[in-house]
Amino acid sequence: MGKKDYLKDEIKHIDIKSFDSTEIIESMSDMSFTARETAKAAELLNMMISDKDCTIILCIAGSSSAGGCMQVYVDMVRHNMVDVIVATGASIVDMDFFEALGFKHYKGSSQVDDRKLREVFIDRIYDTYIDEEQLQICDETIRKIADDLGTGVYSSREFIREMGRYLVSEAKKSDSLIQAAYEKGVPIFCPAFSDSSAGFGLVKHQVENPESHVSIDSVKDLRELTSIKIKSEITGLFMVGGGVPKNIAQDTVVCAEVLGHSVSMHKYAVQITVADVRDGGCSGSTLKEAASWGKVDTGHEQMVYAEASSVLPLMVSYVYHKADWQKRVQRQWSKIFEPLLQGKVEGI
Amino acid sequence: MGKKDYLKDEIKHIDIKSFDSTEIIESMSDMSFTARETAKAAELLNMMISDKDCTIILCIAGSSSAGGCMQVYVDMVRHNMVDVIVATGASIVDMDFFEALGFKHYKGSSQVDDRKLREVFIDRIYDTYIDEEQLQICDETIRKIADDLGTGVYSSREFIREMGRYLVSEAKKSDSLIQAAYEKGVPIFCPAFSDSSAGFGLVKHQVENPESHVSIDSVKDLRELTSIKIKSEITGLFMVGGGVPKNIAQDTVVCAEVLGHSVSMHKYAVQITVADVRDGGCSGSTLKEAASWGKVDTGHEQMVYAEASSVLPLMVSYVYHKADWQKRVQRQWSKIFEPLLQGKVEGI
Amino acid sequence: MGKKDYLKDEIKHIDIKSFDSTEIIESMSDMSFTARETAKAAELLNMMISDKDCTIILCIAGSSSAGGCMQVYVDMVRHNMVDVIVATGASIVDMDFFEALGFKHYKGSSQVDDRKLREVFIDRIYDTYIDEEQLQICDETIRKIADDLGTGVYSSREFIREMGRYLVSEAKKSDSLIQAAYEKGVPIFCPAFSDSSAGFGLVKHQVENPESHVSIDSVKDLRELTSIKIKSEITGLFMVGGGVPKNIAQDTVVCAEVLGHSVSMHKYAVQITVADVRDGGCSGSTLKEAASWGKVDTGHEQMVYAEASSVLPLMVSYVYHKADWQKRVQRQWSKIFEPLLQGKVEGI
Amino acid sequence: MGKKDYLKDEIKHIDIKSFDSTEIIESMSDMSFTARETAKAAELLNMMISDKDCTIILCIAGSSSAGGCMQVYVDMVRHNMVDVIVATGASIVDMDFFEALGFKHYKGSSQVDDRKLREVFIDRIYDTYIDEEQLQICDETIRKIADDLGTGVYSSREFIREMGRYLVSEAKKSDSLIQAAYEKGVPIFCPAFSDSSAGFGLVKHQVENPESHVSIDSVKDLRELTSIKIKSEITGLFMVGGGVPKNIAQDTVVCAEVLGHSVSMHKYAVQITVADVRDGGCSGSTLKEAASWGKVDTGHEQMVYAEASSVLPLMVSYVYHKADWQKRVQRQWSKIFEPLLQGKVEGI
Repeated sequence: MGKKDYLKDEIKHIDIKSFDSTEIIESMSDMSFTARETAKAAELLNMMISDKDCTIILCIAGSSSAGGCMQVYVDMVRHNMVDVIVATGASIVDMDFFEALGFKHYKGSSQVDDRKLREVFIDRIYDTYIDEEQLQICDETIRKIADDLGTGVYSSREFIREMGRYLVSEAKKSDSLIQAAYEKGVPIFCPAFSDSSAGFGLVKHQVENPESHVSIDSVKDLRELTSIKIKSEITGLFMVGGGVPKNIAQDTVVCAEVLGHSVSMHKYAVQITVADVRDGGCSGSTLKEAASWGKVDTGHEQMVYAEASSVLPLMVSYVYHKADWQKRVQRQWSKIFEPLLQGKVEGI
Repeated sequence: MGKKDYLKDEIKHIDIKSFDSTEIIESMSDMSFTARETAKAAELLNMMISDKDCTIILCIAGSSSAGGCMQVYVDMVRHNMVDVIVATGASIVDMDFFEALGFKHYKGSSQVDDRKLREVFIDRIYDTYIDEEQLQICDETIRKIADDLGTGVYSSREFIREMGRYLVSEAKKSDSLIQAAYEKGVPIFCPAFSDSSAGFGLVKHQVENPESHVSIDSVKDLRELTSIKIKSEITGLFMVGGGVPKNIAQDTVVCAEVLGHSVSMHKYAVQITVADVRDGGCSGSTLKEAASWGKVDTGHEQMVYAEASSVLPLMVSYVYHKADWQKRVQRQWSKIFEPLLQGKVEGI
Repeated sequence: MGKKDYLKDEIKHIDIKSFDSTEIIESMSDMSFTARETAKAAELLNMMISDKDCTIILCIAGSSSAGGCMQVYVDMVRHNMVDVIVATGASIVDMDFFEALGFKHYKGSSQVDDRKLREVFIDRIYDTYIDEEQLQICDETIRKIADDLGTGVYSSREFIREMGRYLVSEAKKSDSLIQAAYEKGVPIFCPAFSDSSAGFGLVKHQVENPESHVSIDSVKDLRELTSIKIKSEITGLFMVGGGVPKNIAQDTVVCAEVLGHSVSMHKYAVQITVADVRDGGCSGSTLKEAASWGKVDTGHEQMVYAEASSVLPLMVSYVYHKADWQKRVQRQWSKIFEPLLQGKVEGI
Repeated sequence: MGKKDYLKDEIKHIDIKSFDSTEIIESMSDMSFTARETAKAAELLNMMISDKDCTIILCIAGSSSAGGCMQVYVDMVRHNMVDVIVATGASIVDMDFFEALGFKHYKGSSQVDDRKLREVFIDRIYDTYIDEEQLQICDETIRKIADDLGTGVYSSREFIREMGRYLVSEAKKSDSLIQAAYEKGVPIFCPAFSDSSAGFGLVKHQVENPESHVSIDSVKDLRELTSIKIKSEITGLFMVGGGVPKNIAQDTVVCAEVLGHSVSMHKYAVQITVADVRDGGCSGSTLKEAASWGKVDTGHEQMVYAEASSVLPLMVSYVYHKADWQKRVQRQWSKIFEPLLQGKVEGI
């Protein structure tokens, strides 16, 4: 089989506006187990949206973007359900930016001989395929953006903002998360930015420009994210997967305190995950455990133990059709960083 | 209950030298399921050690260090089983550095009211407790090290090396992983360094020194790690947990290729994890899946689906008593970075 | 807190007729991970329904009936999507029969002190409560039915048929699965019938009637179930959970062969489960593994790794609204057993 | 590949007497997560053994016997650590009786084309293979035992006792669990006995003897098991896997109460499982949840979330070498059933 034989059926991202899950979610709220968790989580997301003082931080880890939820996130940004995004590099660069450049994910099989995929340069994400040669173009585009940016030490947010600016003129697919966030003033943070296709492009940029180049300072990420926490006061976390995004978004409460600011814990928190709680890892740790750390309030929290593709669309469709987001004021947190010189963070 | 009532029983780190698991591992190799996986993984680790050309990269994510495996890692370094470490910030700073400063983890319960823990400033890691006030001293120590380091853009490896230097004179517990690695020339990378207690100290350092300060460049981490891959040629991954360490260590193969170096895939790979494969996340993805990406060779790989505390000590005790590590030459990869000026990476 | 304080919010069983999941399932078929599994499984269920020669065997293990899916199963029977049911005793007696007698399940919490529940005789099923005193009435009703039935050795199917007959006149809630199946000629098998509330009633019946009483012969269950397999030829399995129902329904293929009948493997198979594959247990074993045993054909099988409450309603709503079940002829397998004397099984 | 190519490497059952895990278990008791759970569970098993009034009920579900733990169970019986066994039919018939007849399990791969296995009649249990033609001999032997037994309604215990008697003269491998239990007076119950290779043999027996034959009454199983609970007063459960054995062993407390006997809850309970708690199924339900049902005391219970092959040998080796079992008096519960006519159960 050649590459084309594997890459035939495109992943199509679910459109949560095209169906109304209200009846389903409301029914689920009177059931048990994952159904009730899902309904409670959807209600909590809507509570965050209805709380006019609440900044909503969307955390994304894992491969839900590749697997058909990419448009869900875009719709959340476009419809004012999200104010800040903290994500893995893969979600933002390898998946979202990749599709913005015109490339696609494909339906595949988890029961395949990976050596055969290797021969034709197809990369596998469980039951999903991508063309590795297209991913290299993604790396290369990152390199070019870095070359054009000018020497300096940047937060990942600053760099991703440049990626948004690039897409405004160059995108093949205009409805990417990066571009939507750029246009709506929603900052995107990838605190482990190099751990992605971006890393390859940036390393190449640095090697080719050994004396003066772009650096990505993850301390600055935490600093900027914490400054939003300090300014916002009331915050809610909507987390798909765990990993670094979950941990660092929660950490902003503690970081603010370290800086001498008395801030409240995250008032709302939802996490969708399949991670196990029992190894003590952050990804699967309960939000009650986070309460012991002083990070998350216990009043409004819900874990949903499910693979995101099966429950996230139901939850966001419900919230979309509730339409409380229409009354929300856009926060545009990106603006607080704009007047500043590089290296400074407003507020802290 | 007061804080002292919760913090009574210290976690004691298992000493894999004090018992010999050879008989158990050999028996397990003739069983099925997790037992056979465990035995195969132990054999693969010993194969890496016996392959005189192989650089062994230990990847650590999750809370195994807090949960009693800290000395396992130290023993691996002290007995020449590991050449490079890639870890989460929490493993290195919140757990290892924390204990090096004289603090402890304590046996707790996962069935506890977290609000009560909050009242007495105890942080919970599943069934394990720590004193949050001691953790703040850890943050503060990081800040001091940053203050002393001098303005610049550093890799996490460079900063952790400074932490090692600090511990040589200041450690309360001399047998920390950071100090052992410092003394043995084993570089430690935390590509998401700010996602830890270190982040708090470093943010405070930057806020107090807004014009000129320490930055941690995660691109430089990937650059340095890739330079080791390029120089080493043959490599093996021994991964406890997944997350950023697993992904970025695997990525060095691709990164080397992006830089125009033709390197081989990781020849050996072992991962211990409880992560689920079915959400497409990197943490739970099989090593066969990594083969489709051209990162891991399919010849010598083994996933062990288990919580690390129950199998890791058996595996390393087996390898320790095999004693093939005694014939291994120390690689001391730290040395390749030493003569260089900050900002340059040797070799690439 | 008294019992009434715990038993306030009733579980309401989801009505898959009240919403149309077609758009969602069709969208999910172009996604990845659990979403695509769910869509494929829904399509397979519809294929079974559209195959006019196919007998559909619904297998139920776990607590989905208690947790809000009870009406889903009733609707499947009422709308001709199911010809045979194989279930755990708990699903049929403790949950379905229990509600038929007028009792309810209640929304509870998984984070509760079970000793307090014990004090007020509330039994917990993860986040769901029931009144133990009501369950005792359920036991007692089983005893009465046994007392009235007359001495003999019965299959669980025969006994459950008597329960259906009882409910026709005595049910408080007429739309139970037992009664619907009774009325539609759908046999229900519980091969581990004593492992439920029924067991308590039947043991009491036997102890009170030591010389001559009702016995439940699980060999007869397998015999009867196999006779359906032999007569039906083409069969499909729709399995919620694993356990004994999954195993014994699969076993009918082998059992038919042992009896000298050459039958085909189950042509279609779907399983929804959260069970792990890696311990070699039947509950989590893949349907491909079942193919090695000659039980399930590999052409049309789908595992869905999810907790049933979150995906089952979507799947069955889709199939309901496809309406292919309207063209299906009722099989009424119960009838083949009716003219027979106790102890004989028609056909084998 | 022919059948012989697949069936080359025999599973060898681990001998917990050949190594001493005391040091490991004691170290694990000072760690966290699964390690500490394992150590606590081992200590609880030893507490049961040291409690001179405690009857120990070993429950076995899943494939641990096939996967290399078969001798662990035999050693528990031979060394007086177990008084009653409740198991799945597969564990007792397809695995233990199968090997007693001289057949073997083989090391295989979970990554295999099951259609190829089908062609050569090899059955797969995750990564383990057996010869289906040998399994048919197992079925056939059950049929012969049934033919010889004489018409009647038996508990599974009674039938398995006949299997033990058969093995005394006919076994190819004398150290089977069935034979050891037979010789030591340890009753074995399989409340879903037909759900195994035994089912095939028994169905054939019934079909060939339609008028008068052996029936297996699962009510009688629960009745007999409950009579032991009533007589024993203090009981401990040691459960590997969940399923019917876990549920029905727990149920004896309630069943005794239904019969008007006031008995105590199971005083000790340990379960090793990989089952998920969140679907409300019995297999994964916590022992605290069982406390709400009045089945298990909360004082001495421990869940171990692990695949049994990796932790069970460590636990039992520890208990073996503690040697407290040497002081234990054999209970020989089988004897209470011996003087009785078929159909009666002593005591209730």
